[in-house]
Amino acid sequence: MNIVDLILTKRSGDALDDAQIHAFVEAYTAGDVPDYQMSAFLMAAFLRGMTEAEMISLTHAMLHSGIVLDLSDVPGVKVDKHSTGGVGDKVSIPLAPIVAACGVPVPMISGRGLGHTGGTLDKLESIPGFTTALSMQAYRRQLAEIGLVMIGQTDDIAPADRKLYALRDVTGTVEFVPFIAASILSKKLAEGIDALVLDVKFGSGAFMQAEPDARHLAETLVRVSEGFGKPAVALLTDMDQPLGCAVGNWPEIHESIQLLAGGSAPDLEEVTFELAAEMLVAGNAARSQEEGRLMARKAVVSGHAMDRFRQLVRAQGGSLVAIERPETRYDGAHAADVRAPEGMSGAVARIDARDVGRAMVDLGAGRRTKEDAVDPLAGCWLSKRQGDAVRPGDVLARVTATDASRLEAAVERIARAYTLSAQAPPPGSRIRDRFAAGVWSR
Amino acid sequence: MNIVDLILTKRSGDALDDAQIHAFVEAYTAGDVPDYQMSAFLMAAFLRGMTEAEMISLTHAMLHSGIVLDLSDVPGVKVDKHSTGGVGDKVSIPLAPIVAACGVPVPMISGRGLGHTGGTLDKLESIPGFTTALSMQAYRRQLAEIGLVMIGQTDDIAPADRKLYALRDVTGTVEFVPFIAASILSKKLAEGIDALVLDVKFGSGAFMQAEPDARHLAETLVRVSEGFGKPAVALLTDMDQPLGCAVGNWPEIHESIQLLAGGSAPDLEEVTFELAAEMLVAGNAARSQEEGRLMARKAVVSGHAMDRFRQLVRAQGGSLVAIERPETRYDGAHAADVRAPEGMSGAVARIDARDVGRAMVDLGAGRRTKEDAVDPLAGCWLSKRQGDAVRPGDVLARVTATDASRLEAAVERIARAYTLSAQAPPPGSRIRDRFAAGVWSR
Repeated sequence: MNIVDLILTKRSGDALDDAQIHAFVEAYTAGDVPDYQMSAFLMAAFLRGMTEAEMISLTHAMLHSGIVLDLSDVPGVKVDKHSTGGVGDKVSIPLAPIVAACGVPVPMISGRGLGHTGGTLDKLESIPGFTTALSMQAYRRQLAEIGLVMIGQTDDIAPADRKLYALRDVTGTVEFVPFIAASILSKKLAEGIDALVLDVKFGSGAFMQAEPDARHLAETLVRVSEGFGKPAVALLTDMDQPLGCAVGNWPEIHESIQLLAGGSAPDLEEVTFELAAEMLVAGNAARSQEEGRLMARKAVVSGHAMDRFRQLVRAQGGSLVAIERPETRYDGAHAADVRAPEGMSGAVARIDARDVGRAMVDLGAGRRTKEDAVDPLAGCWLSKRQGDAVRPGDVLARVTATDASRLEAAVERIARAYTLSAQAPPPGSRIRDRFAAGVWSR
Repeated sequence: MNIVDLILTKRSGDALDDAQIHAFVEAYTAGDVPDYQMSAFLMAAFLRGMTEAEMISLTHAMLHSGIVLDLSDVPGVKVDKHSTGGVGDKVSIPLAPIVAACGVPVPMISGRGLGHTGGTLDKLESIPGFTTALSMQAYRRQLAEIGLVMIGQTDDIAPADRKLYALRDVTGTVEFVPFIAASILSKKLAEGIDALVLDVKFGSGAFMQAEPDARHLAETLVRVSEGFGKPAVALLTDMDQPLGCAVGNWPEIHESIQLLAGGSAPDLEEVTFELAAEMLVAGNAARSQEEGRLMARKAVVSGHAMDRFRQLVRAQGGSLVAIERPETRYDGAHAADVRAPEGMSGAVARIDARDVGRAMVDLGAGRRTKEDAVDPLAGCWLSKRQGDAVRPGDVLARVTATDASRLEAAVERIARAYTLSAQAPPPGSRIRDRFAAGVWSR
């Protein structure tokens, strides 16, 4: 195989065949193809496009670059959810225990945050003692015992994706649907699931800002997943404003606990229960989304979902004390209020999610480079949200951080993220559409 | 400067400004930008294009990545020639002493062969003892003393080009006019010339096979060179068949000596004297091409050009014995004849230059990778050329090499490079067009 010939084929707009893509990915993963050749190929593919067949070959090659778990000895239809990420998107944290409490096993392998969105792993690790690094045996055993396990990507799973993801990030080849789909699905298909529910977001705080791009990605993810024999459903959700009230690692765990305890922001609950309903239908636990929604709400009201969350935390070494009294976790952190300035009054028309996300990264809640450490307590709590009336001096939000010197800049930036108007409509549904079995329907 | 932003700008088809291109090239040359980011940029530029302004900025940045020689203290208008390369293209070897003998100083910095075409440096180094590695002081002194110096690119000259050239070769980003033009001109403009004559080739044995591509390159090279204040002329020449009779390092020196001695193949003489005429006009030694052609022929007939070649060889440490008796240099080499097989008769319609070039690389005359050593004696001598009558058993060519085991394959491949037909026209002029002062004219 001559790598330059493969680059030239793609440069001219022709398609590579399955064997060529597998050989290329294998050689790259083994270190036999240098980064500079792969990055030239990535840019050629980005600008020339990839066929559906190439995308499937790429996904397959990346999936089989590492171990693919077989969880068929664990009873039940195993279902996972993947979100393309957003600001304040802590949905996985309450969702997984809710679904598990309803009898559908959830094996979940998540990523860390990079850019303006947070990662589920960073959030879980803000629970003192919680470990996301389990052996594959422990992963399998915990799933069988409590129906729920949440870990990070290991070196064994889709190593080609780890290398490619890092390379795309520094070579301007990120926002390309075939690469995104192959990256997401190679990891998810490796974790041993039977079905997949996708939360594809668009808007200011999402990876894909334009709705048509998000639709295209949703369709592609569902189609490719089904091509691998894994039924999939995608919800298209609005991420123009932060989801829920909390942004930041521990604050988002805190809000997740509130949801499991029975009361949190309506938009966060809507997205969580809707995704839960889809997972319960996919997992054969509910016959309809309506039934799934009811089951999920019942799991919260009954306390079963919270019990399952506690089991998860205990099984993975986390502190139950922090879970029981989440407000004590902020001890030692510094806080500052974001207040509506003089002359600012009206109703909240919009809170720009990207601005909030970036302010929180700079506050220490996220990473600018992979090597950055995160501050688990850095974050904000938005007390005024879309549609709320605001008068000068009102508290819009509260910012917390371990490093007090960073608070002032964050306070200013959060204030600027707010847009007020004389009148503001109440927020509409976050869920804009649903793609399943080749059809958009909602 | 954020490198990813520069990649994204080019990916979207927008132009970088002069400061951005300079910063990018400087950081890459210094090792602060990794190859994988540069290769993504190269591919994006290849597929999205570059503006004239970007090309000039790129050339300027590459030129000033190293030292730029100032030869203004050496009297005379210094003129160099650059050829885009071809099979059997040894023109620089006799041309430089001819032009120098007519009073125009020729400072020439050349490259090594890679791919199916040979490099002037490899040819010169097949003269025993000849060194192409001179210090900048020695380069300047020799030019002042004998009006002629031929060396290789040093680490000081256009280091950005050295890095980029190597990277383009392995990332499928070679055949792109802005990169080719910047690569050629950054080196040539660094060597201290006042004017430049270009031999832009097309056809099977050329880098640019299609004539329109070669025309575009010729126009670009002339325009950019003039943008840097260096008058330039380009000849568009046919490289579909090997130039002259000899292909290979020492064989080409041998044929060059024949030309300087007063008799060699008409096509080789045509191209050499035409380029000499252009250089003499550019160097203010002749008032017209016609006068230049006559001066050049006179320099050969009088023996002055051969004298100048001997001075060059002596000045750079080469063996004068080899020059005086070139046939003795083959002592110890093995040889084999390429004969017309039974049933093969007619007239030579064509000898495919690329096939001959590739056969010679495999024989040891060229490099497949930069690390390969070359066999100075490997090569061939085409005794039957376009228009010549051939009967079965006739010797078409003679192949020589130090490694006898490689001869058989070369003999077969040279035979296959010949196309015979019942009638074949005599060869026409190699020189197809001339571009100067914005006009094609011939």
